[in-house]
Amino acid sequence: MENKAEIEALVNEIIGRVADKWTMVVLEALEARGTMRFTELSQEIPEISQKMLTKTVRQMERDGLVSRKVYAVIPPKVEYTLTALGHGLSEAFCGVWIWAEKNHAKIHEARRKFDVKAAR
Amino acid sequence: MENKAEIEALVNEIIGRVADKWTMVVLEALEARGTMRFTELSQEIPEISQKMLTKTVRQMERDGLVSRKVYAVIPPKVEYTLTALGHGLSEAFCGVWIWAEKNHAKIHEARRKFDVKAAR
Repeated sequence: MENKAEIEALVNEIIGRVADKWTMVVLEALEARGTMRFTELSQEIPEISQKMLTKTVRQMERDGLVSRKVYAVIPPKVEYTLTALGHGLSEAFCGVWIWAEKNHAKIHEARRKFDVKAAR
Repeated sequence: MENKAEIEALVNEIIGRVADKWTMVVLEALEARGTMRFTELSQEIPEISQKMLTKTVRQMERDGLVSRKVYAVIPPKVEYTLTALGHGLSEAFCGVWIWAEKNHAKIHEARRKFDVKAAR
């Protein structure tokens, strides 16, 4: 049996893993587009390096957020799809996207003020 | 006037900033405890280095998520409090904590299976 402190540590560790820029961006792309090949993900998110994308989808697969299907063809074809768990996280994170959409002007105004103050 | 692509880029950039483990952990601590001194934050989150905590609260201040109050006493006293914007993000992110609490067993089971398969 897990006690409260153990569960809290587990939850903190999971938040640490999923509160990650690239995980969120890949989650969003798969939520919007459905199943995608590695190369499609790479084209959809040009800012991410191949190495970082490989690492991100592998971690997401390990956490059960995406499923990976390999086709035995030449050249090899690999497809990624969100699992039910991945859809759930995407839904939960949706509130943060809405918050960012609603508040981006306020954040930019705060940054402008901070930078003016810091430059004095 | 900003067009749709510009707003999308802004929102993506903001998600990239706030989808960050330490930002989330500091947000959670301030939400639970209210105003906190730097040393209190540091004690509450022993896993974070002083350097990373300094960087995190500075970025959060710049983004308008926390306000910082410096008291002219010796030794100097610095207090951090969530702003309305910070409370809003904390609320939006709440869904992700609930998701993690609900699903930690599934995630650990997925990891166990993945590791068994990878070890073959």
